Order: sequence, then structure tokens, then C-alpha cells
Amino acid sequence: MRTAVDGRLPAEVARLLKGFLEAGGKRLRPLLCVIGWHAGGGHGDVDPVLKVAASLELFHAFCLIHDDVMDNSLTRRGRPTVHRALAEQRASDLSRADAERFGTSGAILVGDLALSWSDELVHTAGLTAAQSARVLPLIHEMRTEVMYGQYLDIAATGSPTDDLDRALAIVRYKTAKYTVERPLHIGAALAGADDPLCAALSDFALPIGEAFQLRDDLLGVYGDPAMTGKPCTDDLRDGKHTAVIAIALRHADRDQRQSLTSLIGDADLDEDGVERIRGILSDTGARHAVEQMIRTRCERADRALAQAPLPPAARQALRTLARAATGRTS
Amino acid sequence: MRTAVDGRLPAEVARLLKGFLEAGGKRLRPLLCVIGWHAGGGHGDVDPVLKVAASLELFHAFCLIHDDVMDNSLTRRGRPTVHRALAEQRASDLSRADAERFGTSGAILVGDLALSWSDELVHTAGLTAAQSARVLPLIHEMRTEVMYGQYLDIAATGSPTDDLDRALAIVRYKTAKYTVERPLHIGAALAGADDPLCAALSDFALPIGEAFQLRDDLLGVYGDPAMTGKPCTDDLRDGKHTAVIAIALRHADRDQRQSLTSLIGDADLDEDGVERIRGILSDTGARHAVEQMIRTRCERADRALAQAPLPPAARQALRTLARAATGRTS
Repeated sequence: MRTAVDGRLPAEVARLLKGFLEAGGKRLRPLLCVIGWHAGGGHGDVDPVLKVAASLELFHAFCLIHDDVMDNSLTRRGRPTVHRALAEQRASDLSRADAERFGTSGAILVGDLALSWSDELVHTAGLTAAQSARVLPLIHEMRTEVMYGQYLDIAATGSPTDDLDRALAIVRYKTAKYTVERPLHIGAALAGADDPLCAALSDFALPIGEAFQLRDDLLGVYGDPAMTGKPCTDDLRDGKHTAVIAIALRHADRDQRQSLTSLIGDADLDEDGVERIRGILSDTGARHAVEQMIRTRCERADRALAQAPLPPAARQALRTLARAATGRTS
Repeated sequence: MRTAVDGRLPAEVARLLKGFLEAGGKRLRPLLCVIGWHAGGGHGDVDPVLKVAASLELFHAFCLIHDDVMDNSLTRRGRPTVHRALAEQRASDLSRADAERFGTSGAILVGDLALSWSDELVHTAGLTAAQSARVLPLIHEMRTEVMYGQYLDIAATGSPTDDLDRALAIVRYKTAKYTVERPLHIGAALAGADDPLCAALSDFALPIGEAFQLRDDLLGVYGDPAMTGKPCTDDLRDGKHTAVIAIALRHADRDQRQSLTSLIGDADLDEDGVERIRGILSDTGARHAVEQMIRTRCERADRALAQAPLPPAARQALRTLARAATGRTS
């Protein structure tokens, strides 16, 4: 992490970002990048690979910081989100509205810097010309995909429907490709992997990534805030268009649909309301259906993994990660 | 400009960004990049130079779109800002608060995409390895500088003081380096220019860039909205910490200081209030002092230009641009 360019420039920006990165997170993307490199038969200097892997974590920090602004989330990784922390800093010398605005603006900028610095980290990673030529287009794709996925997500938020395809498109772009497929591809590309290997990695990555996000959606309804580090009902309050909600709306009777429509997206949703939603998601079979979808996708990923032409250690690492990511409670 | 990656992805994002780019703007940065290339004795294939120049305009679109979110500006280039246009789109099917939130979130994402695509444009510009090695570090510096400058700006907004140095630091990072110096350096670096030439370009660029922003600050108080394309009083309503305000606060008597403090940053500031501010800025000599600062800086830039080892055509182009940018009314 670089510090301020000049003594007069605010060092607190770099400090904030450092704090955010050190607060935890699963480090899934860097891990998958390194595994992708092994999967592609990577050997020799690992330093550039680690730098690209780290750049994915920095890019992810950018995504989360902006995501938290968009969702107006209060906590992340068990701490106040960046925009909340900044607003707090100014709570004593600005009006509440101005402090909130400073928090939002500051977090947008801290995110922008994280994106810029992730880029700088790739450019200064010491890649060969051949590696750059293979990897940069994948990084561009990854960025565009996740931002489009995020756009689909916010466009659907506030008015969830029974459109399951749309919910699954969000899952695919925002998570499956971004969190799993592209990091593996990027690592494999650094090792000079060929197209068939990348396709085999996709066959594993997309179903497991979807399973990962579907699990996340369920945790957003049933999760324990002490484990996930974020209030479990943010998604419900925001009216996120998720698969479990789409399925519930499809199978709900009139009363249930009316309850869901009025409760989901209600900024003042209380614990009773959450319990009512949980009941309907169970009664309509939506929770069960999503658990089933997770299981199907895990099995598909397992089969793909068994057939992929991978070194045994890479296969084992992916299998372990897959289990951890989709059976998790946080 | 690329279109949506996939039929299911929202083409409106690319459309919005295209509309924003086509709505105008001075194209100062691309122009300066090309002039910098000529200044550095550039010859041969100009296509990569034009692509890097275009990437600066795309990067600038990112800056403006996020800037407009942070300032909550209503219009830009005579049209609704991106977050306003998006909020309007959803005005009929969402509550007002949700539509505004969608506008803000969507604009953050459209900006993020503009930043990512500006990067992609550089990477696919067909630069030689030597050009990349020279230009990428400058692009990274430019990004970090403008974001830090922007951070200084928002941190000072809402509570302007008589700290002129701080106002000038904002001017330097947010504008002089970003708008003038770095585009020239980037163009010159593409041509393989040496350090003395870059230093000579800085000697011209920094004073002229400061003059440009000081003119912009005055237009923010005295400008004609029909010419600038944005409401001239946004800066006053937001409580921007500018040089003219800092000087006025330094020279104001008690009544004038009290008036300035209560009027600047008042979200409901009306035309009478604006007139009162204009009167105080004139009476305290602040307006005159800033006009003088602009003049001094233009003269310094002129002298630097006369002494710089430049091809005559590049020198003439910079002189013409300098006149246009600091004497402008919009």
C-alpha cells in the first residue's frame, strides 16, 4: 500500500483502506488465482503471481466499499463500513446530513483509489509480455462482468419479482464469474494454460460460484450476524432480488405474496417481520428448493472437478475450498 | 465504447456513458496529450497516441460522474447529471427515496465502468513496451493525484476557512496537475521525451492549470449558467473551500464574516443571498485578488512557454489554449 503522495495529502485514505484489508475476509479470489496458476502447471517465479493475486483482493475491496455505499450497509467484517466510519469522524463538526454526505463521498473515493491501486499492482507485478497479453484481457472482462452484475442487482432491488432467471443472472455475473471463474482463469493464464483447461475450470467454477452465492443469499435471511459480521436482514430490508425470494413469490398464495411484498424492502422491518418472511420461505418450499439448487450445483462442480485435467494437489485444494464455501455459516 | 457483454446485460449503461461523452466538454486533456506528444518530438504512428488521449477523456468522464454524485449536482454539460437521469428513469415505479438511491448507485457504477474502460483503452492502444513503461506510471500518478485532490476538496467542503494554502493545494492536485501537467507529460512520454522537457512542461502547466481552476471558481460565483451549463451557485450552496472564499474570510470584517459563514453552505441559498456574497467578495477585495492571482499565473506560464525547448507549433498551440482556458466565460 502506498502512502500519501505528498505531506499535505491525506494519509487517512491509505490508512482506512489498510484497515479495511486487514480486517479479514475470506481471501477467496487471491487463493483461487494461485490455485489456478498451479492448475495450469505454473512453475518458476511465484512473485508476480502473488502480486496479481493481491491485486484481486484490492479490487475486491473496491467492490465492497462501493457496494456498501450502494446498499447503505452499516457494518462489514464486524466493523463499521467505510462510509459509516468516515461519517462518524465528522459527526461532531458537521451537521448530520453533511457528515453522511462526507462519508458517502469519501467512501466513493477510497473505493476509486482501491480500484486504481489494484491496477497499479498488476502493472508493477513484473509480468512478462506474454503474461500481460493473456491476463489483462481477463482482468478487463472480470471488471466489466462484476460491474454489470452489480448494475443488474441494483436495478432489481426494491421490486423483487418471481423472475428466477433474472435472480440467477445476477448470481452468475456478480459472483460465479467474478469470485470463482475469473480468478482461476487469471491464475491459469499466468501459467500459460490453454483454452481446454480454462473451459474445464469454468465447468467447475460456475456451478460452485452459484452455489456459493445461493448460500450467501440464505445466510442473508437465516444467518447469525455474530458469524457473518453483518446484520443478517440487510438484504431483506433493501428488497434484494434473490433466488429464494423469486421462488417464494412464484409459489406463494395470495396472503403470503401480500406479506412478502409489503415486508421485503421495508426499511423498518423488525424481527417479527423477519420471522414472518422466514416462515413463508419455508412454507412455500423456497428454502428447500434453494438448498436443493445448492446441492445440485455442488454435485455438478464435483463431477467437473473429477474430470478436469488437473494436478492432484490443485484438484484437492479446489475440492476443499468448495466444501468450505458452500457449507459455511459465515 | 463496448456494448453489453451478453444479451441479458443492461445496454443502457453503455448508452448512458456514450451520451455523456457526446454531450460535449472541452476535451482539454486529450488535446493536451496530443500537444505533449508533438512537444516531445513525436513522430510515426499516431493511432496509439489518440487512443491514450481518448482514454483520458473516458477517465475524465469517470471523475465527473462521481464528482456529480458527491456534489449532488443536478446538471452537467447542460443536461441532467447521470445520477439524476437514472433517478428520473425510475421515478414512476419506485418511491422517491428508492429512485434517488438507484440513481446514486447506478451513477457510481457507470463511473466505475468508465474508469475500467479507460484502463482497457490504454492497454489495447498498441503501445510499445518502452511506451508502456514510461506512460503507465504517469497514468497511475495522475489517478492518485486527482483522487487525493478530490478527497482534500470534500474534506474541506461545508466548513470553508481562511486557509488559502489549503484552497491552493486543492487547486493544484485536483486541477493543475490532473488537467494540464499530467496530460502533457503522458503525451510527451509517448514520444520518449526526456526529464528536462517534462520539467519545462510542468513550469508552464502548473501555473496555467491553477489559473484555469481559479477562473472556474470565479465562474462558480459570477458565471452565467447559460454559458457554463451548470447552476452557477452550486459551489456556494455546497460550501466549497475555494481561494476566493478563503481570501474574503481573511479580509472580512465581523459582519461580513458572519454573513459569509451563514450563507455559504446553505442548501436553500437564494438569489439575494448569492448577490450578498458577490458584494462581500468584491468589497473585501477577494475577487480582485483572485483576478490578480490568475494574471500572475498566466504571466508565469507565458514566460515558461517562451523559454521551453518546444517545436514552434506546439508552443503556439499551448499559448492559444492557455488564453482560451483562463479568459473563458464557460
